[in-house]
Amino acid sequence: MHDIALDEKILAKNDALARENREALKRHGIFSINMVSSPGSGKTTIIEKTAERLRNRVGMAVIEGDMQTDLDAQRIARCRIPVRQITTGRACHLDAHMVHHALPWVFGLENVRLLIIENVGNMVCPAEYDLGEEMKVAVMSVTEGDDKPLKYPALFHAAKALLINKTDLVRFTDFDLRRAEENALKVNPRLTVFTMSCTDGTGLGEWAAFLAAHSVQ
Amino acid sequence: MHDIALDEKILAKNDALARENREALKRHGIFSINMVSSPGSGKTTIIEKTAERLRNRVGMAVIEGDMQTDLDAQRIARCRIPVRQITTGRACHLDAHMVHHALPWVFGLENVRLLIIENVGNMVCPAEYDLGEEMKVAVMSVTEGDDKPLKYPALFHAAKALLINKTDLVRFTDFDLRRAEENALKVNPRLTVFTMSCTDGTGLGEWAAFLAAHSVQ
Repeated sequence: MHDIALDEKILAKNDALARENREALKRHGIFSINMVSSPGSGKTTIIEKTAERLRNRVGMAVIEGDMQTDLDAQRIARCRIPVRQITTGRACHLDAHMVHHALPWVFGLENVRLLIIENVGNMVCPAEYDLGEEMKVAVMSVTEGDDKPLKYPALFHAAKALLINKTDLVRFTDFDLRRAEENALKVNPRLTVFTMSCTDGTGLGEWAAFLAAHSVQ
Repeated sequence: MHDIALDEKILAKNDALARENREALKRHGIFSINMVSSPGSGKTTIIEKTAERLRNRVGMAVIEGDMQTDLDAQRIARCRIPVRQITTGRACHLDAHMVHHALPWVFGLENVRLLIIENVGNMVCPAEYDLGEEMKVAVMSVTEGDDKPLKYPALFHAAKALLINKTDLVRFTDFDLRRAEENALKVNPRLTVFTMSCTDGTGLGEWAAFLAAHSVQ
């Protein structure tokens, strides 16, 4: 955030549009998540692995936010999931307006029950921007340090679920999984926490089951 | 960035103050770097290891930027290096104004030749804010993906040096060191690239020597 007074106005406008997005998604019976993390925490790989497990059971679509390049969107397209790229240019986060413009595309697809929005890699600003999603999902990896929830509380406060990723690497680091979870729950006691590894498959089943359960309600 | 026209004004004001900071640092014969990376890339640990190697040879001071908590400043203080904490609250980056207020503290210390500024963990916004430093240093770790320079080019474009950290973990990932370096040099051919590991010590000598050479000029 840059200038607090100006930003309050921008945020109020954003929130109004986010409410519209949320209502439209609900009307169409689509469960939506907004995945937020630092660059390189593994969001795109998690989506790929989620697609492998869910695409034959739950209709999925993905919105990919990136400042530059469509590398991530290309990866999702290879999973045979409909994907729409939003290139944000200098903007360090998606906002409700950008998502608003992508929703007609989502609603034109058949049988979508789950919309995954991958935000720009940034643990800070995306936390403040409601896109109209049902659930913000924070992602962190075990190579990032277990004090992250205390240092960047806004995201952990706004999220309903936390994915602690790359657990296959934990034995090579001084990351303490229990302490990370404790720190996250200190910031937000209502977080649902998943630990996972896209390399060895740990936790992916639980995560996919969680999404599937929400998507058919 | 949020609103481009407004931000241009904010940036212009920032740049003017950054120039003042830069001139003041030069007048005092202090070489300064501004370290920028995602959360968890290892900036604080790199500073700790740099302090171990340099503190008896080069007078050092550290400015620690964090949104919340002084955990990192506490770590630096334990290295017996003078450290000043800037807590940014909701701001996702340091700006020239914040650093301006910390400079009298720096100038009041004895024999400082090297000022290390650790920015808020964010690969995006800090890239646009000149603090008045002599050199922006980008940090990324091998667990973040070798496509980061292409996806977040602003930082790699603005930096003069790139530290690729945590190379001890590279064999457990699909990170390609050569490709990462190629991608970074594609964005900015003038980058000086260091590969390092704070766990096994790889590359720390070269990095410390580089800083020492700049600090005595």
